Amino acid sequence: MIEGKEIASAGQLRYGMLGGGEGSFIGDVHRKAIAMDGLAQLVAGCFSIDYEDTLRTAKKLRVADDRVYKDYVEMARKESGREDCIDFVDIATPNNTHYPIAREFLNAGINVVCEKPLTIDLAQAEELAALARKKGLLFAVTYTYSGYVMVKQAREMIRRGDIGEIRVVMGEYAQDWLATRLEDTGNMQASWRTDPSQTGRSNCVGDIGSHIENTVSYMTGLKIKSLCSSLDSFVPGRKLDDNAEILVRFDNGARGVYWASQVAVGHDNGLRVRIFGSKGSIEWEQENPNYLRVAYIGEPVQILSRGGSYMLPNAAKTSRIPAGHPEGYYEAFANIYRNFATALMKKKKGEDISDADFPSVEDGLEGVKFISKAVESSEAGSVWIDM
Amino acid sequence: MIEGKEIASAGQLRYGMLGGGEGSFIGDVHRKAIAMDGLAQLVAGCFSIDYEDTLRTAKKLRVADDRVYKDYVEMARKESGREDCIDFVDIATPNNTHYPIAREFLNAGINVVCEKPLTIDLAQAEELAALARKKGLLFAVTYTYSGYVMVKQAREMIRRGDIGEIRVVMGEYAQDWLATRLEDTGNMQASWRTDPSQTGRSNCVGDIGSHIENTVSYMTGLKIKSLCSSLDSFVPGRKLDDNAEILVRFDNGARGVYWASQVAVGHDNGLRVRIFGSKGSIEWEQENPNYLRVAYIGEPVQILSRGGSYMLPNAAKTSRIPAGHPEGYYEAFANIYRNFATALMKKKKGEDISDADFPSVEDGLEGVKFISKAVESSEAGSVWIDM
Amino acid sequence: MIEGKEIASAGQLRYGMLGGGEGSFIGDVHRKAIAMDGLAQLVAGCFSIDYEDTLRTAKKLRVADDRVYKDYVEMARKESGREDCIDFVDIATPNNTHYPIAREFLNAGINVVCEKPLTIDLAQAEELAALARKKGLLFAVTYTYSGYVMVKQAREMIRRGDIGEIRVVMGEYAQDWLATRLEDTGNMQASWRTDPSQTGRSNCVGDIGSHIENTVSYMTGLKIKSLCSSLDSFVPGRKLDDNAEILVRFDNGARGVYWASQVAVGHDNGLRVRIFGSKGSIEWEQENPNYLRVAYIGEPVQILSRGGSYMLPNAAKTSRIPAGHPEGYYEAFANIYRNFATALMKKKKGEDISDADFPSVEDGLEGVKFISKAVESSEAGSVWIDM
Amino acid sequence: MIEGKEIASAGQLRYGMLGGGEGSFIGDVHRKAIAMDGLAQLVAGCFSIDYEDTLRTAKKLRVADDRVYKDYVEMARKESGREDCIDFVDIATPNNTHYPIAREFLNAGINVVCEKPLTIDLAQAEELAALARKKGLLFAVTYTYSGYVMVKQAREMIRRGDIGEIRVVMGEYAQDWLATRLEDTGNMQASWRTDPSQTGRSNCVGDIGSHIENTVSYMTGLKIKSLCSSLDSFVPGRKLDDNAEILVRFDNGARGVYWASQVAVGHDNGLRVRIFGSKGSIEWEQENPNYLRVAYIGEPVQILSRGGSYMLPNAAKTSRIPAGHPEGYYEAFANIYRNFATALMKKKKGEDISDADFPSVEDGLEGVKFISKAVESSEAGSVWIDM
Repeated sequence: MIEGKEIASAGQLRYGMLGGGEGSFIGDVHRKAIAMDGLAQLVAGCFSIDYEDTLRTAKKLRVADDRVYKDYVEMARKESGREDCIDFVDIATPNNTHYPIAREFLNAGINVVCEKPLTIDLAQAEELAALARKKGLLFAVTYTYSGYVMVKQAREMIRRGDIGEIRVVMGEYAQDWLATRLEDTGNMQASWRTDPSQTGRSNCVGDIGSHIENTVSYMTGLKIKSLCSSLDSFVPGRKLDDNAEILVRFDNGARGVYWASQVAVGHDNGLRVRIFGSKGSIEWEQENPNYLRVAYIGEPVQILSRGGSYMLPNAAKTSRIPAGHPEGYYEAFANIYRNFATALMKKKKGEDISDADFPSVEDGLEGVKFISKAVESSEAGSVWIDM
Repeated sequence: MIEGKEIASAGQLRYGMLGGGEGSFIGDVHRKAIAMDGLAQLVAGCFSIDYEDTLRTAKKLRVADDRVYKDYVEMARKESGREDCIDFVDIATPNNTHYPIAREFLNAGINVVCEKPLTIDLAQAEELAALARKKGLLFAVTYTYSGYVMVKQAREMIRRGDIGEIRVVMGEYAQDWLATRLEDTGNMQASWRTDPSQTGRSNCVGDIGSHIENTVSYMTGLKIKSLCSSLDSFVPGRKLDDNAEILVRFDNGARGVYWASQVAVGHDNGLRVRIFGSKGSIEWEQENPNYLRVAYIGEPVQILSRGGSYMLPNAAKTSRIPAGHPEGYYEAFANIYRNFATALMKKKKGEDISDADFPSVEDGLEGVKFISKAVESSEAGSVWIDM
Repeated sequence: MIEGKEIASAGQLRYGMLGGGEGSFIGDVHRKAIAMDGLAQLVAGCFSIDYEDTLRTAKKLRVADDRVYKDYVEMARKESGREDCIDFVDIATPNNTHYPIAREFLNAGINVVCEKPLTIDLAQAEELAALARKKGLLFAVTYTYSGYVMVKQAREMIRRGDIGEIRVVMGEYAQDWLATRLEDTGNMQASWRTDPSQTGRSNCVGDIGSHIENTVSYMTGLKIKSLCSSLDSFVPGRKLDDNAEILVRFDNGARGVYWASQVAVGHDNGLRVRIFGSKGSIEWEQENPNYLRVAYIGEPVQILSRGGSYMLPNAAKTSRIPAGHPEGYYEAFANIYRNFATALMKKKKGEDISDADFPSVEDGLEGVKFISKAVESSEAGSVWIDM
Repeated sequence: MIEGKEIASAGQLRYGMLGGGEGSFIGDVHRKAIAMDGLAQLVAGCFSIDYEDTLRTAKKLRVADDRVYKDYVEMARKESGREDCIDFVDIATPNNTHYPIAREFLNAGINVVCEKPLTIDLAQAEELAALARKKGLLFAVTYTYSGYVMVKQAREMIRRGDIGEIRVVMGEYAQDWLATRLEDTGNMQASWRTDPSQTGRSNCVGDIGSHIENTVSYMTGLKIKSLCSSLDSFVPGRKLDDNAEILVRFDNGARGVYWASQVAVGHDNGLRVRIFGSKGSIEWEQENPNYLRVAYIGEPVQILSRGGSYMLPNAAKTSRIPAGHPEGYYEAFANIYRNFATALMKKKKGEDISDADFPSVEDGLEGVKFISKAVESSEAGSVWIDM
């Protein structure tokens, strides 16, 4: 097999968390992903709007009493005043709260990692991006799927021209968890995601359509020039979209279709991206993430395996275990945190971080713009809208 | 295993052929498909615009000298005058010739089987459909894929409501044979398909997009209400589309995306249809045609195999050999001919043929309408067009 | 796509048939396979031991009254006396009758095509092989799977050394049709296959294990040196094997495992062969027959598609339609008949047929030897037996 | 999606480590797997036979200086004398050292987690099992694959009789990393694994064949009654087996084949287990570990997805994230540690741990017995050997 990975260097970062209390799915993912490489330690938090929940969670997570906070304002203020202030805050709360929380911490001079979508409103996203730039702080947005090794491999192959000029992009994200009125059953996730006041103007495009957008953007480097979208709501009584089809035109003349659905019965978490160029194609599926399907004109289709000797440098160094030993969702998440934490450590030492490889606040802003334009197009009768 | 199929009954039909001379791909497929069940015998033909080719082909196919014709006009006239006139004519010529030939034979009182697309012009298609109706003649259009057993199974399952009300349809047809300028290499197929004078106003939508349209229509029974399409031409110098994305809205409120491409490197003949309903979903792939992927809410995904004991009647009776013994393209084609020939035999005996199961001139007309509207939408700037 | 196939030349062969009456599965497959290329015409037959069945079948198949026979002895005698004698006889009867029938026709100077296994007894097989040689007659044994295009591609690649010296062969054939006592339900196939008096000493190895043996032998050219087998009978009350595992050693030092099962629930007709060499590997599955999985050390796995431009000559010329248009079981069968008929036509003209590519009586003899040794090993306590 | 997992309770365990220094693959896996759930903290270690390596590694891992040891004897002695003694030791050293190390720690009264195979000699394994029993200590052997959620699902389904009485088991483990003389290139893993003095009498069966044995045993509960094996060495100059085929007979009359290979070009880490019973079958592949292929007689094949609502309790509770979010190798490993740590915590509180679900020293002993008998059979000429 291959040689083991370099062991995490000493000198952990300190982080605090917003959200991730009892019943949270993604908060626990964030913590496990960070724990995997041991680069940062949870030392502070406000895990819920319910303070009792926060206290119980803090105890389980061994957070010291004096760093358990009632709200994010208190947390930002007190942490920024400490000598052992957290190095970054991790925001894993509902969409509508990302903006005020992130702004508070940026203003307090603290680096940010935030769940996507960055905000529920384009102006807010622009403000955060500008603020992060002005303050010179690191700001990651956890678009999980750019953390997968094979997505990085695809990006590198496309960059060096393996498949030629890109012509067509087919992106889809098929789920079925909202095929029925799950929001009526007490399911917390379903409740807030289908509630405009917490989620914003789009549920499906905001939640998963934006993952297509980011993954394609990361793989290809293409910019969307215009789009024409149809946001659909199939389950009776639902206020927000649970399915969407979006025609996309890119700056280089390429065309694409993005399809996102939460009513696609028989699909759990089917993000799939297919990129077709003038010389070849690359296809990737999140549910079978350790492989790439690659084809060149006139040659047999190839199946690349994570860990193969043909892997390109930036992907190869991200792979943790030998080919055939599956890496999954946690590892993809951990890769984002590893790259973020590594960049932050370098930055603290004054080193160059221009090659940092994690989704940034600029990517988050692009994502919010995409969601915003998709909503706009659909509301105007599914017409073409320039980005 | 299963018991053998009923042996073809005696009393073959007689047929004549237009096209299918030397170098033709689809003509040979038609003949082999017909031969498979022995229901009809080739007795007449004009196989090429080159009479020498016609003569050589006729000899190889053992067609009697007095039934080899210089052109379709002569053939229609002479055949209709014979006591042993052909029962049907098989038209396997380029798109632009379907209309005059089919009209000639209909006017001569001869039943027709014609390649798709039916015509290159909507008015022509409407005229042929009207003429067939008026004359009371059978007219099949060889949309191959409706002949597959598992497509019939999907149709029956959807009809009886297995997957509930249809919400979303994803249809795609990915090929790569025109990813380069094959038309410059002397390839006959590539030459006429990319030539507007022989193919009509669309290459990609006309050739393969229309297969998506027909397969979806056959499976679901849904009618397209409106569409918004983008016909793209990626290979430099090409006059017609080699790729297309089409947003579709159906009469029942369902939404869909059709993607057809001849530049999708790494794909040979990737017709794939996925139907999502309120209770379940059905997915089928032409390159792995003996299986259906079926899902119901909250249950494990199912893989149905052609020949399984759970097959529904109209599909089961079409299956020829036991499950696990692959049937392919020829068999799908043969199924269309078997159903057409059986209906024609019944009709000659005055029996009811209301349950005849083959793509008709009406389906062909729908197909031409679809192509026509897709071209119209794209030319108008990819706007929504009502059907 | 690709250019059409050469049209079948005039001058059909005449053939007669034994078996293939009402309720027969394989007889109809033989006829359809022959009809596909139009190289031979059915003109005589004795389709059943029940003469009424024979008469009905003959009528349906349009066989002239004077060439419908009560038994094979009469048929061999009368046909051999006719000027328009059949060119070959097609034997599709239960295993135990192959020997007397084939011998009768060989002695009458008529070429033979016979279902596998060739005989139920090694001495009989040797006698037939010797007789065919002595008489200088063509004798094919219909090991279907050697007719698949991708099996031929594998053979050619292995022959030219693509995967180096062969080390390991994994062959399996998984079915489930006999997982219960189907023989008690009136199923004709199940009844005779599980009956030693009609099937011989092995059911499972004889029926499907021998397909593994032949397919591997055809692909690799390796000879089995010794084997150690376990023939199992899992369904209560069954006299013959319905499952078998066989360790195999080849003359070149390679090792292998053959597993054949009729009780492998969830598998229809799962013949799969995997060949591992010092430089690469080739894998093929009958239920997805148009593809090969090929790997070379240190490179991505490749998926070869029937019809690809990289196909080798003997395989490429056998492919009928463009890549992505599935060919199946009938086409594999038809390929055997096409090659047999072509060789027979050449032989009649005195041409060289040393490159004839169909499974011969010698292959049939090897198959019977394999079955015989597998039974012997198992009965002796699953010990190693030399071939 | 689903609700988040319960947050790890406070009160971590302390553990020490043997092996896992620079260049070790599996040591890092152990640490990351433990870190994932935060149930235990690394506090002591001897990471290499090279003390400098140990020191560097200890520093990186933030192990306190006074708990970094020169050898395992010192470590066992000193740790057992501390009030804050480690709760368990984690042994991730080459095969031949497992026995002396484990014995030392057991004798020091410390619980053990040990890599597989447990020992290189049957008597040693028996001694360790007896010693653990006598001392009343917990002893886990890290057979990774029993940690996968879908393997647990298979076990539960089989236990409750879903597939009836087991008839046939097909287990295989295909790798290709030793298809060439990797041991000559300085690869550490390859060197010690092909060296009898470090690995014992078998490389391939010991390393991966034993994983088949354990996974099958865990899934089915069946005991092997006898076996007949062929251990092969294909790469020139290699002293130990790099491929093996083993016929297996189980106590209930079921039959099986185990195939393990390190020369199967094109396969990374292909552990695959297929269990066929009288009513159904279950199949699982390690490289696609989040799914089970399940079939019942006469029904469509089912694909079960980790996280589906139909999951059985012991499997469902092990799943960490929603269906469609892949879990991989680390998570499987982490599940073993989570169950071991949970049992150890319960034991410390005097609670019942009879339902503890991790591979124990008894499983390790079974594994060594299997390896030993496989070697014995092969050396005796591939004859049948009783267990």
